[in-house]
This record gives sequence, C-alpha cells and structure tokens, in this order.
Amino acid sequence: MNLSLNKISLILISLTLFACSSQTKPTASLQKDYCQYVNPLVGTLGEGNTYPGPQVPFGMVQLSPDTEKWKWGAASGYEYSDSTIYGFSMTHLHGTGIPDMGDILFMPTTGKLHIRNGKKDFSEEGYLSRFSHDNEIAEVNYYSVLLDDYDVKVELTATNRAGLMRYTFPKTDSAHIVLDLSHVLRHKVIWSNVRVEDEVTITGMHQVKGWAKERYVYFAAKFSRPFDNTRIFSDGKEQKYDSYKTYRFRSSIESAGPDIQFVADYNTKESEQIMVKVGISAISTANAKKNLDTEIPDWNFEDIKNKGKSLWNKELAKFEVEGSKEQKETFYTAAYHAFMSPTNYFDVDRNYRGLDQNIYKAENFDNYTVFSLWDTYRATHPLFCLTQADRNANMIQSMLKHYEQSPDNLLPIWSFWNNETWCMIGYHAVPVIVDAYFKDVQGIDWELAYQACVHSATHPEYDATKEYEKLGYVPYDLENESVSKTLEYAYDDYCIARFAKALGKTEDYERFSKRAMAYKNLFDSEIAWMRPKDSKGDWMPDFDPHFFKHLGAFTEGTTWQYTWTVPHDVQGLINLYGGNKNFTDKLDAVFANKKGEDYLGVDDIHGRIGDYWHGNEPSHHISHLYSYAEQAWKTQELTRKIIDTQYGNQPGSLCGNDDCGQMSAWYIFNAMGFYPVCPGSDQYVITSPAVPYVKMNMSNGNSLEIVARNYSKENVYIQSMKINGVDWNKSWFSYSDIMNGGTIEFVLSDVSNKSFALSTRPPSFSDAN
Amino acid sequence: MNLSLNKISLILISLTLFACSSQTKPTASLQKDYCQYVNPLVGTLGEGNTYPGPQVPFGMVQLSPDTEKWKWGAASGYEYSDSTIYGFSMTHLHGTGIPDMGDILFMPTTGKLHIRNGKKDFSEEGYLSRFSHDNEIAEVNYYSVLLDDYDVKVELTATNRAGLMRYTFPKTDSAHIVLDLSHVLRHKVIWSNVRVEDEVTITGMHQVKGWAKERYVYFAAKFSRPFDNTRIFSDGKEQKYDSYKTYRFRSSIESAGPDIQFVADYNTKESEQIMVKVGISAISTANAKKNLDTEIPDWNFEDIKNKGKSLWNKELAKFEVEGSKEQKETFYTAAYHAFMSPTNYFDVDRNYRGLDQNIYKAENFDNYTVFSLWDTYRATHPLFCLTQADRNANMIQSMLKHYEQSPDNLLPIWSFWNNETWCMIGYHAVPVIVDAYFKDVQGIDWELAYQACVHSATHPEYDATKEYEKLGYVPYDLENESVSKTLEYAYDDYCIARFAKALGKTEDYERFSKRAMAYKNLFDSEIAWMRPKDSKGDWMPDFDPHFFKHLGAFTEGTTWQYTWTVPHDVQGLINLYGGNKNFTDKLDAVFANKKGEDYLGVDDIHGRIGDYWHGNEPSHHISHLYSYAEQAWKTQELTRKIIDTQYGNQPGSLCGNDDCGQMSAWYIFNAMGFYPVCPGSDQYVITSPAVPYVKMNMSNGNSLEIVARNYSKENVYIQSMKINGVDWNKSWFSYSDIMNGGTIEFVLSDVSNKSFALSTRPPSFSDAN
Repeated sequence: MNLSLNKISLILISLTLFACSSQTKPTASLQKDYCQYVNPLVGTLGEGNTYPGPQVPFGMVQLSPDTEKWKWGAASGYEYSDSTIYGFSMTHLHGTGIPDMGDILFMPTTGKLHIRNGKKDFSEEGYLSRFSHDNEIAEVNYYSVLLDDYDVKVELTATNRAGLMRYTFPKTDSAHIVLDLSHVLRHKVIWSNVRVEDEVTITGMHQVKGWAKERYVYFAAKFSRPFDNTRIFSDGKEQKYDSYKTYRFRSSIESAGPDIQFVADYNTKESEQIMVKVGISAISTANAKKNLDTEIPDWNFEDIKNKGKSLWNKELAKFEVEGSKEQKETFYTAAYHAFMSPTNYFDVDRNYRGLDQNIYKAENFDNYTVFSLWDTYRATHPLFCLTQADRNANMIQSMLKHYEQSPDNLLPIWSFWNNETWCMIGYHAVPVIVDAYFKDVQGIDWELAYQACVHSATHPEYDATKEYEKLGYVPYDLENESVSKTLEYAYDDYCIARFAKALGKTEDYERFSKRAMAYKNLFDSEIAWMRPKDSKGDWMPDFDPHFFKHLGAFTEGTTWQYTWTVPHDVQGLINLYGGNKNFTDKLDAVFANKKGEDYLGVDDIHGRIGDYWHGNEPSHHISHLYSYAEQAWKTQELTRKIIDTQYGNQPGSLCGNDDCGQMSAWYIFNAMGFYPVCPGSDQYVITSPAVPYVKMNMSNGNSLEIVARNYSKENVYIQSMKINGVDWNKSWFSYSDIMNGGTIEFVLSDVSNKSFALSTRPPSFSDAN
Repeated sequence: MNLSLNKISLILISLTLFACSSQTKPTASLQKDYCQYVNPLVGTLGEGNTYPGPQVPFGMVQLSPDTEKWKWGAASGYEYSDSTIYGFSMTHLHGTGIPDMGDILFMPTTGKLHIRNGKKDFSEEGYLSRFSHDNEIAEVNYYSVLLDDYDVKVELTATNRAGLMRYTFPKTDSAHIVLDLSHVLRHKVIWSNVRVEDEVTITGMHQVKGWAKERYVYFAAKFSRPFDNTRIFSDGKEQKYDSYKTYRFRSSIESAGPDIQFVADYNTKESEQIMVKVGISAISTANAKKNLDTEIPDWNFEDIKNKGKSLWNKELAKFEVEGSKEQKETFYTAAYHAFMSPTNYFDVDRNYRGLDQNIYKAENFDNYTVFSLWDTYRATHPLFCLTQADRNANMIQSMLKHYEQSPDNLLPIWSFWNNETWCMIGYHAVPVIVDAYFKDVQGIDWELAYQACVHSATHPEYDATKEYEKLGYVPYDLENESVSKTLEYAYDDYCIARFAKALGKTEDYERFSKRAMAYKNLFDSEIAWMRPKDSKGDWMPDFDPHFFKHLGAFTEGTTWQYTWTVPHDVQGLINLYGGNKNFTDKLDAVFANKKGEDYLGVDDIHGRIGDYWHGNEPSHHISHLYSYAEQAWKTQELTRKIIDTQYGNQPGSLCGNDDCGQMSAWYIFNAMGFYPVCPGSDQYVITSPAVPYVKMNMSNGNSLEIVARNYSKENVYIQSMKINGVDWNKSWFSYSDIMNGGTIEFVLSDVSNKSFALSTRPPSFSDAN
C-alpha cells in the first residue's frame, strides 16, 4: 500500500506541478484581476453566515471581524446589520448553521482598558467598538474598518496559516492591543495559556469545548513595535507580582486558566501604525511560530495582501465569465465562496492533529478539514472534481485518514479541526468518494476508500442502519428523522453499489443495489408522498405532509421537500407516481403551493418558492427533476428563476446558509447550464446558462466553453443547443461528453421550446436493474 | 556549545556505560538482595507522605493505592490508618506537603457498578473497598492487597513508564474494571478523553489543574483478556447510542469531557486473573502506547517485578551496610526513598513536554522532573553528587532546559511535570548546581549554568530580590517571609560567589560575596535572634521569637529555627553571638526549650526536640553547628538521638514529610557519620555513625568504607577516628579527603571525648573575606 501510495503521490505531485505551471503561465503582472468581482460581504446579511475577512483559497486562517457571538443566525461571527465589532479573530466557519471558532481574538483600543467583550446594546462595558459600513472595505484578502470608539483603523490580510493586522492609532498615551483568549463564538473556552516570549512576541493557546468537542488552537503573535508594557489578566485580575506582601512569586508574563487576556500597551504618535502578525496551529506554539515565520517573515502588508489576491486570481481564473458587472460579481463571489472550504489543516512541517488527538505527518497528501458533507456532496465536491481535482483527492485522503483514526471506523459525517460532530445524517463522504472515482480523480487508494464506504454504511450502531437493512427502511418508532435517513441512505448505497460493480465486488453490488431501492418502501401511493412507517410496517397515522420535521421523521423539512430525495432513481420514483404527469403535477404543486412559503420551519431556511426551499439543501435538485419527465423547459425556467431571486452581489443576496460553499457551487453549476443531480453517476442535467459566456478551465487541463446565444434576463428557455458543434437534444449529458473540454452552445429564447429534449431523460439506476 | 555538549555527552555516555558495566558485574543470579530490607510502608503513617506502591528507581510511574484524596496530610494518596482504598493510580508525589497526581486510577470491582469514588465513611456509595493490612504486601516493585468488598486480589508492579496490574477475581458475572479519569488527588480534572481502540486496548488522557497549573497525562492501557463489554460514562451518564429515538449518533466507544469513566465488564471464573498494563506519557496516547509496548511487551508479571527489583538492587548496592535487621531496614528504606525523586520525565522516543508545553527531544541528556529544591538541595543532591553523579548531571541539565524554556528565565523553584509551582522560597537550584560543580559532576555547560544561577538570583520581580540587594535584606513591610528569604538568598549567593570565583568572574564574585553577608543585617544582637526589619531600617516591634511565621516573616517556622540558616558563614554568626559560648548556649536552648515542642506551628511539622523540629528542613543542619564551636560531641550526641527517635523501619517512623527524599538523605549521611551542612562548599561535618559498618560505592568508581568500632546504641561519642589510616582530629573533612575512596574508622564510646576535634572547625566564608 505504501509503495502504491508513493507512486500515486508522485503522479499527484507531477499533476500538481503541471497544474501550477499551466496556471502560472500568465505571469503576475499579466494576471487578470478577477478579485475585483468578488464581494466578500455577500451572504453577511441574513442567513448566508459568511464572513468578510481575508482568507487565501482553502486557507487555514480566516481572519475576520466578529460582530456577533451568540446567535445561531450569525454562525460566522459577522452579521451585516450589526453596528459594533468585538474584535478580529483568526478562524471562522463559512456559511454553517452552527456557530463555532472565532479563535484568538485581537482588538486594538484606546483610553480606558476593557478586557471583556461587552454587549452590543452597551448594557455591559467592553472593548467592542461601533463602526460604520461607510468606513469598511471588504476585498479579496483585505478587510479594513474604522473603529469609531477608538479612532483606530484596522486592516487585515492573511496567508494560509497566519494573519497580518495593521492598526493605525491616533496620538494617545493609552493605546492597547487586547488579546482575549476567553473569546470564542458561542461556546466555551476550557483552558488557555499565554506567555510573553520577548519584547515583541507572545505565544499561547486555547482549548475549546464547542460544537467540536475538543479543539486546541495554538498561536504565536509578533508585534512590529516592542511593547511599552504588557499585562496579563486571569479571571479578571491582573497577574502581576506586586512584590508587596505576597508569599509566592507569580509571573507577570505568563499565565494559564480558562479566562485569560493579554494586553500590550503603547504610547502612540498620530497615525502611528502597529502591525501584529499571528500564526496558528492545532499542534503547538512552536508550530504556530514555524507557520508564522515561514509565511509572514517580515512586515510587508501589501506584499502579503497581493500574494493572497494572486492565489485567488489563479483559482478564480478557472472561470472566465462574460456578462454584466452584477453577473460577474455574483459568479466570482460564488466561486470565491466555493473555494474557501474545506480548509487546510496541517502545519508547514506537514504535521497535523488527528481525530484521536495524536500528531500525524501528512506524508503524501495535504490534510484538509471542515467537512460539511450533508451539504457539499451535492454540488461542491462535484465542482471540485472538475476544477479542484488535486485538492479533492487530498480532501478524500484526509477523510480516509479520519476513517483510519476513528475508533468507530467511520468516514467523517460533519467534522472540523479533526473533531467529529455527528451533525446531520447519512454517510455522505460516500458520494464524494464515488463521484471522484468516476470523475478520474487521481491519487486515492480506492480499495481502502471502498472499505471505508462499506464500513460507514454498515456500522452496527450508526443511526439505525441495522434496522434499515433489516426492514428496508428506518422505522419512525425506533429512530428519528426516519424518512430522511432512509432516502439518503438509499442514495449513498446506490453510490456504493456502483463503486462495488466497478471494483468487481459482485456480492456487495447486490447488497447495496437492494438497499438503494429502500426509498420505495416509504412511498405511500395513496397519498403520493414519502411517509414515515413504523417497525411493524404501519404508516404513521394522522400524517400531515406540511408538518415540519413531522414527529422527527424529517431532517430540516417536510415530505414536500424530502419526497424527491431519490436522485439515483428518478424514473423509479416517477413510476411510483404512475407516470410523468402525476409526477410533474406534484412537482408543480411544490413550486406553486403558497402555503409552503409561510409554513413553519427552522427560521434560517429562506429562499422559498412555494414548498421549494432553496435556503436548504434537500431542495437543491428538485427543479431539475422536470428534466426526467418530459418538461425540461420547467427546469430551465425554474433554475433561472432561482438564480434571479436567490443570488446576487449584495450582503443580503444569499437566502440560506452557504454551507461551506454548497449554495455557491449550486449557483456556479446552474449558471453554467448544468447540474449534477446525482453525484456518483456521470450525469449532468442541463439547466439554462445564467451568463452569456463562461469558460471553465478544468483541472485536467481542458477547457469547456459555454456560450449562451441570445442571452438576456428574459431568455431563459433553450431553443436548441450544440455540444462541440453537434446538435444536442437531450436533457442531460455525461462527464465523458465534457471531460475533454470543448464548447457547449446554447440558443436561448423567452419562449419555451417544449419539444427540446422531450423524449429523453437521464438514465435511472433501476433502468439497469 | 553544541559541539561541547556533544563531547560532554560522549563522556557522559561512556561514564554511564562504565558505571552500568561495573554495576552489573555481579550477574543477576549473584546479585545481592538488598530489596529484602526495604519496607515501602515506612512513612505512610502520619506525616511522611510516602506511598507503598511499586516504582523503579527515579521512575516516571508510581503505581500505588489511593486511600485518601483530599487531606493535605496524605499528599501521596495513601495513609496507613485508612481502611479503604479508592483504587490504584499511576502517579504519586513522594513525601511532599501538598497533594497532587494520583492520575489514571483503575479499580477492579464486582457486583453493582459504581463509577464514583464514594466516601471513606460510606456516607456516599462508590467503588472504594475496605481492606486490611493483614492482606497487604508492600515490597520493592510489588504491592498486593485484597479488596474485601469485592473479594478481588490486586497485585501491582512497574517499569519506568508503565505499570502492570494483576487482578484475581472471584467467580462472578459482574466483574468490572473501572477507570476513573475524573480522579486526581485533591485537585480538578479540567478535561479528559478515552477511546476503545480494539477489544483489549483503550487510550486517553486527562488534564489537571492542580498544584501544577497545567498538567497533561496520557495513557494507553491493554487488558490481558478481551472485554466482554465496555461502557463509557460522561457526567454520570452512559455514553451509549441506544439507536432509539435519538437524532444524532453518539459513539459508545469514545468520549471527552471533564468527568469520564471507562468500565470493562467481565464474566469471570473462580480465581480468574485479568491483567491490565498501562503506559503513561505527558505527550500523547501514541507515546503512551510506545512506552507501554517497549517496556511491558508481554504479560510476564514476575519478570517485570524482578526486573524492577534488580534495578533497585543495583541502586541499593551503593550502600553495603552491616547492622541489625532494623538498622538495615531503616538504612535501605532511606536509600530507597532517596532514590525515588526526581523522576524520569521523557518517553522512550526521548521526547518530553517542556515548561512551555512544547514537545522537545532530550538529545544529550535524560530529562527529569519533580524538583523539590527547597528541601533537596540540603542533603539529597549532595548525596547524588557522591552516588548518582550521572543522574545528578541529567537533573541539572533538566533544570537548565527549564531555565531556557522559562519566559522569566528562572531556574526551577518547585516544579513537577514541567510546571512551575513557585512553591517555597529562595533559588535553591543554585546550590545544587554549584555543589555539583565542586564535586566533579560531569556533563554540564557550566557557563550556561552560571548564567542561569545569576539570572535566577537577580530577576527584578522575583520575591523582593531587588529590595534585598538594595537594602541588604528583605524588608518585612514590603515582602512576606522576609527573614527566611534574606537568609536563604544570602546562602544561595555564597554559592554563586564561589562559582563566580572559580569561573574567574571577579566582579560577580564581589557582588555576590557582599550579598552572602546579608544575614548580618537581620541579626538583632540585643535579643540575639534574627529579627524582621522594615524598609526604613527599624526592627519589627513587639517581636516574639516563638510566634510561628511571625507576621509572615518566617517560612514554616520561627526565628528559633531560622536564626541558624547561615550554613556558609557559621563563624560569622558565632561572632555576632560574641563567641562560641553564647552561640552554643543558644543552641542548647533550642534543643532544651520545652515550650518549643508544643508551640503552635503547621500541623505536619513533628519530630520536635525542643525548638529543633526535625520534621521540617530549616532545622536539618542545626545539630551540626556545635561542631563549629568546640562542641563536636554535642553534634555526635544529637544526630544519633535524632536517628534513634525520628527514623526506623515502621509505617510511622518518619516524623515529617520525606520531601522527595530529603529526610531520608539526611539519615543516610548522618548514619554514615558525616553531613553536608553547606552544599556548595567542599565540607562535610563529622557526626557519629549509626551503623557498625557501611561501604559506599560511589559514582566515580571509588568506595568509601565506614567502620564504627565499638558500635552500640549507647556508644554515640567519637573517641578517636582515622581517615585512610591517619589519625583525624577535626570536626569535618572535605570532599577531596574521600573522593578517592578509602576507609573512615571511628572508635565510639558512651562517654564523650570533649577534646576530639576541639580546636578545629570547618572554615567559614568570611574567614577568607
């Protein structure tokens, strides 16, 4: 295995070098500036839960202002409607529904020293400051804001594992830079420590019990100007040996405990700039220092900022978009958001903290973390297959390491900083792996990956998979979210079946093919909805399809959203409905149902069109299902409608959690005119391009041009199309149709062409079974 | 520096190899069994604060039963008068006055499962069990006890970094082995985690906020029989995914939090033995496993036990004692206790966790921890200079690493598991280093050591050393324990002065020579006592020499004990008294003062002879001071009296905390007939041998034979003596007199020979100044 891994690694390195060299052909000076089209504030107002601060692509550091600390609705720490900032912390989650991170918060202040956050309503004093969006700039790898209460301008930029802050102070004899190790978003700091290493350097850590149960964040911070004075507070008291009437020495330059703040005091001149650079690590302060010294060796703010922009331009150059400023800003911001997570999670010495808290060396791969797989298996990782194949391979390697380090031998469910949160349902590392297998992603030990998939699907204690296999469904009397689990398991099992077949594992193929049909067992043809069933085989009585999470049988939704979760066997579902008409009538009802728009649900699921809730993932493929049932034009109409109404270039443009890039990846695919309804298959369902032109430069070196003739906002329907010059009259195409690049040419119109792709549909799994 | 360190290391390794080969000449089968004379229970009753469980010499693991968890008076976790045992934990402090450790506690039980300690008075249920000393065996590297409540026999043995437990169960369907990660002596577990790695292996850790502020203890435990069942409890609740009506998976084989217990369940046959072996590490579970697998690769209990005994026999063979069984037991138990601490603190891969929590490799030295320096600079390290020179060098190397890793650049004060506690006073790493320098200990970068000594003595914030240097004493109005600090600083400064002179640092020599005379500034000749003085130069009014800790001016004592803390310049003190008569009159008063025996003091200072309190270190050299003032016979009489009344071979034989071996090292020196009143000098004051014969096999390969002719319990006075055949009529000899080995021949009598050594005294520092 090692030998083959080494071989694979060589291939991978060659590929990476090739990819890099091909990317860097346009030299820095000639590099096209796509960053100008990115607005990091998109998604910061409302439920997008994005953050505006700097991060390099997939970077371990996300250095951003924290305006909110407690609310679920601002899980990234920043909410555009806030008017105060607590400070600037080194880590954030992108677009999640649950807050965590916000580690290692710095805040420059003046005047009376505060060591507590304070409260937004000023009912408690603190170091927080008012600010105005008028004095705020958010660009790729650059953020700046004026802190009104202190007249301090703050500028931020970042590298992979370090952040650089530039504070411009007024003239004052009481400038302070506060580091609050007790700060974390929503959760609890269990322990922390800090020490002053020399006149410009501090190191320390904090340990957080949060959504991630056990997270260690170490840091090393260097200041551009020697401290005039330093102070350390523990439990609110200054840790100073006052030399008077004390029994025992207490160091004034180091401390440990659950509630620690460090303060650097300065006497500043008018407009004096003091910079602070901070490296982080999950391993040790020594490693944090290594990360810092390697990535930010000096004090050239512009250089660090421009290097990060250059890295982003390389990634954004994967899409060469033509269109209006708003379209470009929407598209490139979506690409920016899609390329933030998962994040690097290894130090410059390649060591990382594993799932079992031991330190491992990432020998033949780059380690990644932040796997929001219930979301990202849908479009994010499929987009990575095309545009981030090497990173996707590294992410899968990281998931396999997680599997090996997991006492339960399970692939990640929802993990970050190598902590398993067990959040959400299913085993959706499986479709990520299987999709990558079928999309030529290189560098994986596929036998190990296969074993990991099977084990993750058959763990005897995991979420009633035992009962599911025995009964053919998850019974609602024994397990919550029973319908959602059944449907998602069946889809994941389809992926394993396909993987098994490819690897020649016939017995497994039979087993998982059978499991893939489990969805049929929960379809109640009398009401034509998926419906909870108990372990005796009886349907749940008094079933109300609109009842949110109906007695816990659905995950963040109702059967209106969940009935469609059969992406691998849409024809099978159509058959259950008795044919295309019944099926599309029901789909029509989903989008038309006015009741659905104000039905009770979780409060962060917006973006509703009837019972279609674009703000959450279970709906994401529903509009595409018309293309399986002779109404491809409705897919075109609806996906364009969703793009028009649910995306944009403004802070409030995201209707739901960006969920580590899934909402943004959905946009990118659909704006290019296709969408992977069933990752793990080779199919893309054709939508309707939302920009006049886009060229996708793929990881395999090939480019795919998408031309939308007659593009206009109103022209949402495909009149005709060609792939590589050949007329195309199907509602889908396959990976092999585009893997070598080429051109997809759409001709659009404001009148639907109902005969386009009329008699075709993507193959379904049961077709072959 | 590296080069020279490498050279030194080569020398050190050669020396070590030489020492080892010379030690191992008597092959295992021929090895003399000194272990038979060790009673590990000595010091477990009362204030000795020893533990009876197995430990190899200076071993990192101290596997011992915990009977007490809260009381200061049982800081080792075991108190002989207790009748219940909580369990068996892997680490303990030897003879300290403050409890900590007791990490990673295992307890075998039967019947109803308890996951809490319970209480000794049974007011709370728990896993604790009654036991009887009748069913208890404590030997070198072996401990066994019958747990009455469970009918389980427990046997313990240890290697350096691992422990092996053998449990003999009755026939039962409900045998449990409980691991309570929330258990620690007296203090608080901040965090812990555990995972079941396979059917016989668990790993985990706990983090303790205790006397040491931040201590991480990792473990790996392997069981000799696969688990029938395992359970993990967190906050009192079983962490079981019951698969019924839960939303999210929760692993039943891993957990993390501040209150975690693991339980292995078994169905056992009559007398079935199950063994558990546990490796520990301060770094990681991976390292704990490495330590375990390296040191206890299999399940041979007898082998591990015998290997440990063999290691002890090698150490105990440094003293070949003749005498009664009681004398041998007293002597070898003292040697055993003297060779327990400091303890090894590095893993088999040579990595260790440093003072700054970073992981370092011990490249050219063995890392040690547990530095109770206020105690052990007096006799323990001087004994190591003679008999553990290589270990002493490694200990000093470890202290220098501590210095380098300390943000304050201070040598250790009282540190364990690389945490500085700042406990007690002074900077007594200095005399340890300087004594080693003058006793030919090899392998130290002496320039670095010197720099460390000077910095430790002149840290501007440490315990009023700034005011001390400025005023010539520590003023009581500005600093607590002012008299004790002044006196101990002055002695430490004498050591630095002597070190400076040897290294040719003239300016420093002058500076520290002056500081060494600071004691004179606190001697009030009107009352003939050391007395607190304020920063204006006024004596403390209403001074009562018997007032314990007089307004905080004394450390664990009164001026009755502390006035004598001028070991480096006894003649100077005699001069302050106006000559020998006044001086010895006052000394007589110390030993005669009946009031002193029941005067209030801290309750763990026993061993009182008047105001001489042998149970605590400030008194330890007082009886020897007669030898500086023409009354050497009183030193002989008193040291023998102390040995007779304060030492023995019984659980209650230690009158005070053994303090990491200081009490025992005091015994060893005095029982051999000499004592290092002033470490850092080359002097040993002659006492009166307490055994008929002892041969000390020194680290330098030479042996010193001590022959006590006419030895009897009553014959405490030296009539005459010879060193290497030459008549000796001085009250002291120097290191050079014994470094090459030879014979000291005493002739004893029950009548004092007042003319012996009458006109001699050890030189005092001011003689030469």
